[in-house]
Amino acid sequence: MAAPGDDAPVPEHPAVPAPTAAGPLDDWLRDRRQRREEAGLRRRLRTLPGACVDLASNDYLGLSRDPRVVAAAREALDAHGTGSRASRLVTGTLGIHEVLERELCELTGQPAALAFSSGYAANTGVLTALGDADTLIVSDAHAHASLVDGARLSRSPVRIARHSDVAHVGRLLAKRSEERAAVVVESVYSVWGDHAPLVELAAVCRTENALLLVDEAHGIGVAGRGRGLVHEVGLAGAPHVAVTMTLSKALGAQGGAVLGSEALREHLVNTARPFIFDTALAPTSAAAATEAAQIIRTTPELTDRLHERARFVAETLDIAQARAAVQSVPVATPEAAVRAAEQLRARGIAVGCFRPPSVPDGISRLRITAPGNMELQELSDALTRIREVLAGLPGPELPAR
Amino acid sequence: MAAPGDDAPVPEHPAVPAPTAAGPLDDWLRDRRQRREEAGLRRRLRTLPGACVDLASNDYLGLSRDPRVVAAAREALDAHGTGSRASRLVTGTLGIHEVLERELCELTGQPAALAFSSGYAANTGVLTALGDADTLIVSDAHAHASLVDGARLSRSPVRIARHSDVAHVGRLLAKRSEERAAVVVESVYSVWGDHAPLVELAAVCRTENALLLVDEAHGIGVAGRGRGLVHEVGLAGAPHVAVTMTLSKALGAQGGAVLGSEALREHLVNTARPFIFDTALAPTSAAAATEAAQIIRTTPELTDRLHERARFVAETLDIAQARAAVQSVPVATPEAAVRAAEQLRARGIAVGCFRPPSVPDGISRLRITAPGNMELQELSDALTRIREVLAGLPGPELPAR
Repeated sequence: MAAPGDDAPVPEHPAVPAPTAAGPLDDWLRDRRQRREEAGLRRRLRTLPGACVDLASNDYLGLSRDPRVVAAAREALDAHGTGSRASRLVTGTLGIHEVLERELCELTGQPAALAFSSGYAANTGVLTALGDADTLIVSDAHAHASLVDGARLSRSPVRIARHSDVAHVGRLLAKRSEERAAVVVESVYSVWGDHAPLVELAAVCRTENALLLVDEAHGIGVAGRGRGLVHEVGLAGAPHVAVTMTLSKALGAQGGAVLGSEALREHLVNTARPFIFDTALAPTSAAAATEAAQIIRTTPELTDRLHERARFVAETLDIAQARAAVQSVPVATPEAAVRAAEQLRARGIAVGCFRPPSVPDGISRLRITAPGNMELQELSDALTRIREVLAGLPGPELPAR
Repeated sequence: MAAPGDDAPVPEHPAVPAPTAAGPLDDWLRDRRQRREEAGLRRRLRTLPGACVDLASNDYLGLSRDPRVVAAAREALDAHGTGSRASRLVTGTLGIHEVLERELCELTGQPAALAFSSGYAANTGVLTALGDADTLIVSDAHAHASLVDGARLSRSPVRIARHSDVAHVGRLLAKRSEERAAVVVESVYSVWGDHAPLVELAAVCRTENALLLVDEAHGIGVAGRGRGLVHEVGLAGAPHVAVTMTLSKALGAQGGAVLGSEALREHLVNTARPFIFDTALAPTSAAAATEAAQIIRTTPELTDRLHERARFVAETLDIAQARAAVQSVPVATPEAAVRAAEQLRARGIAVGCFRPPSVPDGISRLRITAPGNMELQELSDALTRIREVLAGLPGPELPAR
């Protein structure tokens, strides 16, 4: 522990009492840590080694290192420096933020976009801005933590719908007493890799006068030849459908966005607290995401290559191919998942390891993503080693999907 | 509105009903917009012009354009690309994140640090991780929106203490039924520019077995010759005091951090949802903030120059100098504040304009920040023009502080 500054001016304050080593908070922190250890759920941060085959990233198309994307970030760095220096509503809105938002509209086919500093902030922002006591939020059971937290923050009544159960959503909407309603889903769910029944959900929302809010975090760059599942199924620009996305997955940068009508954007600018009370997205991230979005829109083959690699992963590991970037291998216990990931890391391969509470069904999984620009030989070698490690594990409790 | 993709595969779905132009959500959005307009509180995003004297940024020391900070970001861009590619718990933790966290500990004198993708995320993260039904949160009436939202998300019982009223805090803590408690304050409040009575608050928290959580968003780079108010008053490293900060103000980058004990950090890694379910901070932002923190720690004269400029601003505009980077000029109405800011912008000067709900007391203000590296002649010229505009305004309802 560093010593308090000796050079600090002597404050005109009463003396500080000697610190104690423990208190109720320390006891509580220790108790919580012990519970995690006993449940095999304690997480540690590990630094990614330089020499490593990374099959765990969300950089689905490898754009974070694309020379065009890096050059765009460098140009923004030279023009604007390392930060946007203020919130968007003060002097933080730079030309590059407007260019980014226009490009995200081009990519997704939406009329208006507003950038946030993360996908988490975009989801909590839109839900808190739309929610109130007279707006029911119906949230899919597998919705991402940021959507759950946004719903909780919104002060809206919240009901959880069974996963992708359109009839259940319809019943919850039909029997509501609230005037307004929003249905909250993801387009592509990362853990199971399944697609939401967006057209059916949109139809129910249309009938029941509800907004359908679709998180395309795992859909952009993956579905619709890169333009997302909402675009693929013909719902882009439908007035009762809004979209959120992240700039830190297929776009290889940092940030998030909400896309929808101009009226929605204007409302968010005025009321979304994670937007109003946050510094604008860094110039480098805004410029990188803009370039990446343009590349995805004009190079649909990039997304095709992602799915080719996904098929190769699924065939080699004998699992059903998910219609997503992430391919999942169920593992019997959290401990076995951790052990497998550790063994692979020792062999120079990083894979994801999903454990509760990050999985909606309590099943631990290895998670494997082969970016669209990965060399096939490198992938093949890595998969051989993954098969070896998997062969030494206890079998999954559920059949591989 | 862009047309849905003609090239998309035809989905096996029922036909999408024709969209309607309006629904209950549209009516509601229109109603809300009209209410804002009638109250003179409608906000619009304006792009910062290239040729402009920016007296509205939070880049208090001008480090976002410091050549050393820009060079550090460029180096990270070349080494790691434009994104961190995954959450910190998967493969998003890079060596530069660890270096950043060590440097933030050096700067603030805290034992451990954890970086978030924004200051907003750091505040909501730490409060949701610490809060529960048996933890009372006592929040200062002027606490930032992110602390308010974090407290709301935490599921803790929350009590609001009168602004900087230590006795009130003590009473709320003493009569609590909850076992644990956290007192939430800022070190330097940006709107009034006042300092929290940290030593007295720490003493009360010590007596009442509570954690004191101090948001140093406006303290780092400003108080304690840059190292923050907690460090200045000798509380750095006290086990019942934790700190949050942003990397996007004096550090000129993007991001936020929570600083405190190793046990607190370990708890956050395992439970802070805005940390777990978010992509790691972008490499450029992490590297820029690291370099900026080192510059602040080793160049206390930078902070001295900030206060010299603040004194010059206060003397020239005949207002009491706030012990903060931001100097505030109260204005009678939100409309007058907007008009003054518009007139100044037309003369090439950007100043902040704070209106409800961004101000805790409902008083609109112009907000003026002269970065520590600003040329005095440029500042002097700008202040002359500000005086001209202020002379044409209706007087403040409250005496200038």
